[in-house]
Amino acid sequence: MGLTKIEHIGIAVKDIEASNELFAALFGKKHYKTEAVESEQVTTSFFEAGPNKVELLQATSAESPIAKFIEKKGEGIHHIAFAVDDIEAEIKRLTAEGFKMIHEIPKKGADNKLIAFLHPKSSNGVLIELCQEIKP
Amino acid sequence: MGLTKIEHIGIAVKDIEASNELFAALFGKKHYKTEAVESEQVTTSFFEAGPNKVELLQATSAESPIAKFIEKKGEGIHHIAFAVDDIEAEIKRLTAEGFKMIHEIPKKGADNKLIAFLHPKSSNGVLIELCQEIKP
Repeated sequence: MGLTKIEHIGIAVKDIEASNELFAALFGKKHYKTEAVESEQVTTSFFEAGPNKVELLQATSAESPIAKFIEKKGEGIHHIAFAVDDIEAEIKRLTAEGFKMIHEIPKKGADNKLIAFLHPKSSNGVLIELCQEIKP
Repeated sequence: MGLTKIEHIGIAVKDIEASNELFAALFGKKHYKTEAVESEQVTTSFFEAGPNKVELLQATSAESPIAKFIEKKGEGIHHIAFAVDDIEAEIKRLTAEGFKMIHEIPKKGADNKLIAFLHPKSSNGVLIELCQEIKP
């Protein structure tokens, strides 16, 4: 139960190819995968740091949430994602605690996950994602 | 070698007592410690999420970097800290890769750590901290 670890940190970038090189230099190894998430109009890449990941996100259209974030705040940390074992139970628990969900019903995200975001207004300006691995 | 995990995420807050309650509701458990860091003019509290931590930071003076951050960007994620085994070796490696350090010489941080920050201008707008546990 609860949030079992930081699954990943999402970072909004303007030019994912340049940022892939930058973060490869930071981690001393290349990203291990890239993935397009059409529903969010983003292209993503993933780096590994032990039990955690860093996800770079570049908008693929001006309507993408990532394009709007960069316009408002500039490049930088966009969200923090916590791993959960049972996303529906966590949504129920957090809603009862007074948190507002952007997604009350989990949806399919990148990296084989069911995801749901909390509204940053109910969590100190921090955009928080819950993610649960989809079991085969 | 390298960045072995996300040690913690630092979140800038205005009212750490209110935020302690909010994050206790999020994690389903209370912060496990508080600590004042006089050199940074902040008071901090720490929550555990498996192998990772969340650090809340509240400014104790208007001159604190956290006060300036909130003035400019509002409450939210302030920095990401990676654990390293040998902070001096990592500073040398990252400097050689072209990253700019705010601290070229590690200093004592919260939570019994030697720390050094990278300049966000050289890392896509992300404020990155390296931290190494101080061994007894």
